[in-house]
Amino acid sequence: MTVTFPAPTSPHDAEEGLTLAPRFDGDGLVTAVVTDADSGAVLMLAHMNAEALARTIETAQAHYYSRSRRKLWKKGEESGHVQTVTEMRVDCDQDAILLKVRVAGTGASCHTGRVSCFYRAVPLGKPGAELEFIEADRAFDPSDIYKK
Amino acid sequence: MTVTFPAPTSPHDAEEGLTLAPRFDGDGLVTAVVTDADSGAVLMLAHMNAEALARTIETAQAHYYSRSRRKLWKKGEESGHVQTVTEMRVDCDQDAILLKVRVAGTGASCHTGRVSCFYRAVPLGKPGAELEFIEADRAFDPSDIYKK
Repeated sequence: MTVTFPAPTSPHDAEEGLTLAPRFDGDGLVTAVVTDADSGAVLMLAHMNAEALARTIETAQAHYYSRSRRKLWKKGEESGHVQTVTEMRVDCDQDAILLKVRVAGTGASCHTGRVSCFYRAVPLGKPGAELEFIEADRAFDPSDIYKK
Repeated sequence: MTVTFPAPTSPHDAEEGLTLAPRFDGDGLVTAVVTDADSGAVLMLAHMNAEALARTIETAQAHYYSRSRRKLWKKGEESGHVQTVTEMRVDCDQDAILLKVRVAGTGASCHTGRVSCFYRAVPLGKPGAELEFIEADRAFDPSDIYKK
């Protein structure tokens, strides 16, 4: 499927216009920040190519582009953790997308089994200090879900 | 200032270890997601090189790397909208940082004068539909703050 969006326009039009004209990077990707529609917690970061962005808009189910597998990736297609998008936003210069989602299955979005990928804190004021696990309980065991 | 972090390790150690070993991309950058420490709202996305990351950890004030100006950028150095970091997290594969911040001055983080860069919604289920402005009131007039 070839999907096209309007080309990026001037900075002013990108910021103040009503047209979605994404600024895809050299690899054809924009960054997506994914938050929980209820708690507001940041769940994960991912990337979208034009097709992933178009399918997410059409279906209101989150689609990304897997840089490691080099293919379109419907979130949850393997794990069951489908993300239903309740709201999508675009940022000022149109190179980033914000998704507010409800997650099916165990409610986890991280492939390690946690609800959020951001399960470790970096201590402030202490360069080189060890990371601190927080909100790190696993909602599922990855070895049960992902086949090798 | 030359700043170094431990090199990325195995996927398992990156995900389950206690060492901050950022996976900088080919341009030497990681992505930072910035949220409001009180409301939880996503304010902006930015990028950090090793120096920006180190200075943010040391000072608990957000520093980024400006890709357009190709230099370290202390947020608010020009506009007064300094971001004090109340919590920093790293994601599973250590190529993304989450900052929870309190913003000085008018409280706005977007260079267009809005509190958040995500001030337009993308309608779902309606490919090609116009963007919808939401939470788009300006906290400041950019022309008052940024000199040409």
